[in-house]
Amino acid sequence: MKVVVLVGGVGGARFLLGVKAALGLPAHGAPEADSPHEVTAVVNVGDDVWMHGLRVCPDLDTCMYTLGGGIDSAKGWGRVDETWSVKEELAAYGAEPSWFGLGDRDIATHLVRSRMLRAGYSLTDVTEALCDRWRPGVRLLPVTDERVETHIAIEDPEPRAVHFQEWWVRYRAEPAAKAIAPVGAEEAKPTPAVLEALSGADVVLIAPSNPVVSVGTLLAVPGFRTALREAEAPVVGLSPIIGGKPLRGMADACLTAIGVDTTAEAVGRHYGSRKGSDEGILDAWLVHSGDSAEVPGVTVRAVPLLMSDVDATAAMARAAFEIAGVEP
Amino acid sequence: MKVVVLVGGVGGARFLLGVKAALGLPAHGAPEADSPHEVTAVVNVGDDVWMHGLRVCPDLDTCMYTLGGGIDSAKGWGRVDETWSVKEELAAYGAEPSWFGLGDRDIATHLVRSRMLRAGYSLTDVTEALCDRWRPGVRLLPVTDERVETHIAIEDPEPRAVHFQEWWVRYRAEPAAKAIAPVGAEEAKPTPAVLEALSGADVVLIAPSNPVVSVGTLLAVPGFRTALREAEAPVVGLSPIIGGKPLRGMADACLTAIGVDTTAEAVGRHYGSRKGSDEGILDAWLVHSGDSAEVPGVTVRAVPLLMSDVDATAAMARAAFEIAGVEP
Repeated sequence: MKVVVLVGGVGGARFLLGVKAALGLPAHGAPEADSPHEVTAVVNVGDDVWMHGLRVCPDLDTCMYTLGGGIDSAKGWGRVDETWSVKEELAAYGAEPSWFGLGDRDIATHLVRSRMLRAGYSLTDVTEALCDRWRPGVRLLPVTDERVETHIAIEDPEPRAVHFQEWWVRYRAEPAAKAIAPVGAEEAKPTPAVLEALSGADVVLIAPSNPVVSVGTLLAVPGFRTALREAEAPVVGLSPIIGGKPLRGMADACLTAIGVDTTAEAVGRHYGSRKGSDEGILDAWLVHSGDSAEVPGVTVRAVPLLMSDVDATAAMARAAFEIAGVEP
Repeated sequence: MKVVVLVGGVGGARFLLGVKAALGLPAHGAPEADSPHEVTAVVNVGDDVWMHGLRVCPDLDTCMYTLGGGIDSAKGWGRVDETWSVKEELAAYGAEPSWFGLGDRDIATHLVRSRMLRAGYSLTDVTEALCDRWRPGVRLLPVTDERVETHIAIEDPEPRAVHFQEWWVRYRAEPAAKAIAPVGAEEAKPTPAVLEALSGADVVLIAPSNPVVSVGTLLAVPGFRTALREAEAPVVGLSPIIGGKPLRGMADACLTAIGVDTTAEAVGRHYGSRKGSDEGILDAWLVHSGDSAEVPGVTVRAVPLLMSDVDATAAMARAAFEIAGVEP
């Protein structure tokens, strides 16, 4: 079975672990050559940023490290057994930004990536090369090879726009977002690999990732939404909002900025039905047990959506397969 | 007194410590504002190289770390308390070259430098910015802002050319050098700062650095030799060859390649007299006690030339001032 999953970073990566487990694939390493299952993740690039001359792709790396067994599981991002010598030294030079934590091990990834990008390789090719080492068992595809970087309009107190990372990491999403803009999206397009994955999928899952700055950025790439709507496979979303609160991160701050309530129903309606509108992307919507949602044209089911461990997450994936009517 | 010193890496950096001590300047940190003395080092860039997308300048950095108190004194190069996470990770990715030891702390320097170079700053400006942190108390000037990289022709067994670093670090100068070429030198020129330093100097010292791949590369930059010959200040060289052996490194392998014997006399004659030839650069030549040399047109004196500690090295600098007829 060909499973395509739309993901952001930490939550998306954990969800992918559950998808692999639901399909009987090993947690780390490549699947057996004769495995009938194939998982492709379409990954957000809106968090990507050049820092200290290095191309940093937080969501791609979080997925790669998580699925490859190199993640710092306690933090959910970055490398296990990380060291911080470079960061200390950059601070001693007064090199900005100083608020972003680039670990030494992580920097090696960025060095390999930046060198390849400067040599003319696409981000898709670079990601594949990095995954040669990590063998995540999931094909990790950046949604686009172009540069699309989420920026946040704030008032601080004067109006200005900052990169998503600055708002998220430096300011902890504290100054309210007045607007959220995927800078560069207008000139971007989904990669051929992404379009092929969507058109060849048996099922498409939308991970419980941030609906605005993760899934929203995928949808902001012109052509992606149409390709998703035209896919033959059913599309099942999983709510990242549980009991009116984001599962993790500060998704509420992003939802407020685009005028969407922080409820499973509001996010489901924001995604909308593939059948009933020009823009909708869902066939089914999973909300957490105890939550309820009415989303016109979309089948809604309540199941446990806490990714407390891989088993619980695998159960979520199985529930998504079931509501989609597909069977691994 | 304005002292200009021509230097390479490890030996040049140690010699600079002695020059500072001879002038009563503090070992680390900037001189007092009212100090009457000013030391400028013209530094070799022939060892410089792009590695993993980073601009590495071994001689500039060895001088900067040594004079700024950040050097690994045991090795003579690299940072004290260095860590090696990035190198381990690059190896895990199979990223070449794997034979060059880029330490984590060191990498921060290269990140700052590479970012500034890519933003359009000159190597001279970048070095000054890095020295804002290290306060070496010596103005460190790359001889040129252009890229001049020493390459070595070897037979291995087929003839090929490798970067100096590959020959020196990877192969330990083992395959005999058939030729030594400063690639890019033809299109390079000394920086205005270097030319001003030479023309304004009270004395010019040639550190006991490698006569071929350190001092030789300075001389290979068109215009540098002429500026040195036309300087009003006396020029005093210190022999890096002691008892027919290089003080450190593998200078003999380089001298053999250019047909110069590994003796203090042969190197003195290779540098030549400013008075007696079209190419010569020396007024005086210091050789080690017990060595002798006859260099036409050049005053030769034998004094202890072992840089065993800062006091011994300061005595060398004082001997150079004395033979030059200048007094701090």
